[in-house]
Amino acid sequence: MVQFVDVAHMSRWMADEGVQSLIADLVTYLEDDYRRWEQFDKCPRLPSHSEHGVIELMPTADAELYGFKYVNGHPINPSRGLQTVTAFGALADVATGYPLLLAEMSLLTALRTAAVSAMAARRLARPGSRVHALVGTGTQSEFQALGMRAVLGLDDLRIWDVDPAAMDKFTRNAQALGFTVHRATSAADAVRGADVVTTCTADKVNATILTDDMVEPGMHLNAIGGDSPGKTELDPAILRRADTFVEFHPQTLVEGEIQNLGAAHPTVDLWRVVDGQAAGRVSDHQITVFDSVGFAVNDFSALRFLRDRVSGSPYATEIDLVAEPADPKDLFSLVTLASPVAPH
Amino acid sequence: MVQFVDVAHMSRWMADEGVQSLIADLVTYLEDDYRRWEQFDKCPRLPSHSEHGVIELMPTADAELYGFKYVNGHPINPSRGLQTVTAFGALADVATGYPLLLAEMSLLTALRTAAVSAMAARRLARPGSRVHALVGTGTQSEFQALGMRAVLGLDDLRIWDVDPAAMDKFTRNAQALGFTVHRATSAADAVRGADVVTTCTADKVNATILTDDMVEPGMHLNAIGGDSPGKTELDPAILRRADTFVEFHPQTLVEGEIQNLGAAHPTVDLWRVVDGQAAGRVSDHQITVFDSVGFAVNDFSALRFLRDRVSGSPYATEIDLVAEPADPKDLFSLVTLASPVAPH
Repeated sequence: MVQFVDVAHMSRWMADEGVQSLIADLVTYLEDDYRRWEQFDKCPRLPSHSEHGVIELMPTADAELYGFKYVNGHPINPSRGLQTVTAFGALADVATGYPLLLAEMSLLTALRTAAVSAMAARRLARPGSRVHALVGTGTQSEFQALGMRAVLGLDDLRIWDVDPAAMDKFTRNAQALGFTVHRATSAADAVRGADVVTTCTADKVNATILTDDMVEPGMHLNAIGGDSPGKTELDPAILRRADTFVEFHPQTLVEGEIQNLGAAHPTVDLWRVVDGQAAGRVSDHQITVFDSVGFAVNDFSALRFLRDRVSGSPYATEIDLVAEPADPKDLFSLVTLASPVAPH
Repeated sequence: MVQFVDVAHMSRWMADEGVQSLIADLVTYLEDDYRRWEQFDKCPRLPSHSEHGVIELMPTADAELYGFKYVNGHPINPSRGLQTVTAFGALADVATGYPLLLAEMSLLTALRTAAVSAMAARRLARPGSRVHALVGTGTQSEFQALGMRAVLGLDDLRIWDVDPAAMDKFTRNAQALGFTVHRATSAADAVRGADVVTTCTADKVNATILTDDMVEPGMHLNAIGGDSPGKTELDPAILRRADTFVEFHPQTLVEGEIQNLGAAHPTVDLWRVVDGQAAGRVSDHQITVFDSVGFAVNDFSALRFLRDRVSGSPYATEIDLVAEPADPKDLFSLVTLASPVAPH
């Protein structure tokens, strides 16, 4: 039997443990895995693009565990009542090839994306940061706010979204979580004076959510919405005067903000910063950009964290996903010995 | 909710419908998909190799459906009571990115592998074939026997395996299915006089299950066990005097029998034969080899077939795999509104 965490159980786990607390703990798992980055079997995720969006597989492995995530990105989905991103994934035993854990990952991806942003901001945001601007208040936004509060204590939020209903929704959720929320009148208004700016919009276009004039010295930009070819958020001029940090350059070059600048644009591997091999922020006037696209190791850490936390608990159920005949060479016996199934 | 077919339900479905009948029907689905081969988004499967075996992801898509399979190959597994191959996979809606069906695929892979072999043999075996030799009587063997009976009516079997217990198991299963089983004393003895020879062994070595002298003019070789770098079954001399048919050359060149001969060795795409663009068998003396490694389109066809057959039936259940908040931008509401979960 394979352990299974469905949406209802994942929701309840997050409700009982607290999202901010889980993000803080997941950051520790991510830091452990980023420090041993070179031990992972890594490749850019495998996309299948269509006119509607993209479906991707994101595998990685170390010597003991293999993990992968199925994830889609369909920016048009909310207009028809659907999620932009849905995901599920599994963790497997490298020694046997058997899956160990299957999990919904729509919620888990929101948690891990916030935790990766938090891990980066801990090293890239200016010391003494107080104000977090969020441009885009959709699915990821509450998780991002909690992530920045988990590592930097930011509870002063300035928000902007082109959809007023999304701002209403965010304000309601964030106030219940104890945040102070200032509803801005534009992206420029939201960003003005902020220490950390998160862009989490979803259009599949080369958009300019932030123009160069909005970005002030010392800001840290947490750019998470640009994550696919032809889907970016920042004026390239911003990147030219900033220091840019990436998860896995071969993938970010295709999917991230730097797709607009090319391979020659210098970047710093985030794992080297976490491991102490490279500098994060070095001055109060430096502009830092975390050009986050989402990499398979992030999901691996999240699945590993989930497994450690829910194994054997009421938050995990079991699923009959692996054929286990008594004689391993007699798979056919499962057919000859099959029991009746109950009608619906 | 996503439809789900677990091992128990898959077993029962195969028991109720009959494996041979399902293979015959799946051949039709495969032929439909092979005839529209050029419509698929195709790439070699994505392997993660370790000292223990391999774990692979196999995605493909047409304009409407996306499918992928997770599959491992661990030849050492039966010695510790485990399956060499376990698999599961999903079918998703390209337009929304939402998964539609999740299924166990250990049993389904055995069914589809037999159906692909049957589809190939229908075009490559000599007319009037009567005798099927099976070298390797493990997990795949009963399915392969039923596949050849489904399309060619072969019920006269000659078998060989280095493991006598595996031959006992096969004989028991095959006699119950109405086959005549001759238990040979060696691979050469099994193959002698056969019309169709299936090799389905599992060692991860460049083995020589068939030597050149065993192969007689007119034979069709259905070589399914060689499917990974360093894992082959045939003396390369056999391939040099045969015509070789492949599923997807870029993948077969890395994983199949032809890895021992290189890119210059001529092959014929099976889809072109199915579509009538290329010849299958052209003479009674020709030796034909189906160098089968297993390609993503095969699994796509199997998932599509499964979905058409089990949707809304007692063979499919539902699984809570996709987060569906009332407001698509309010994923966080699933946490705030989460219901308690029942303890074990």
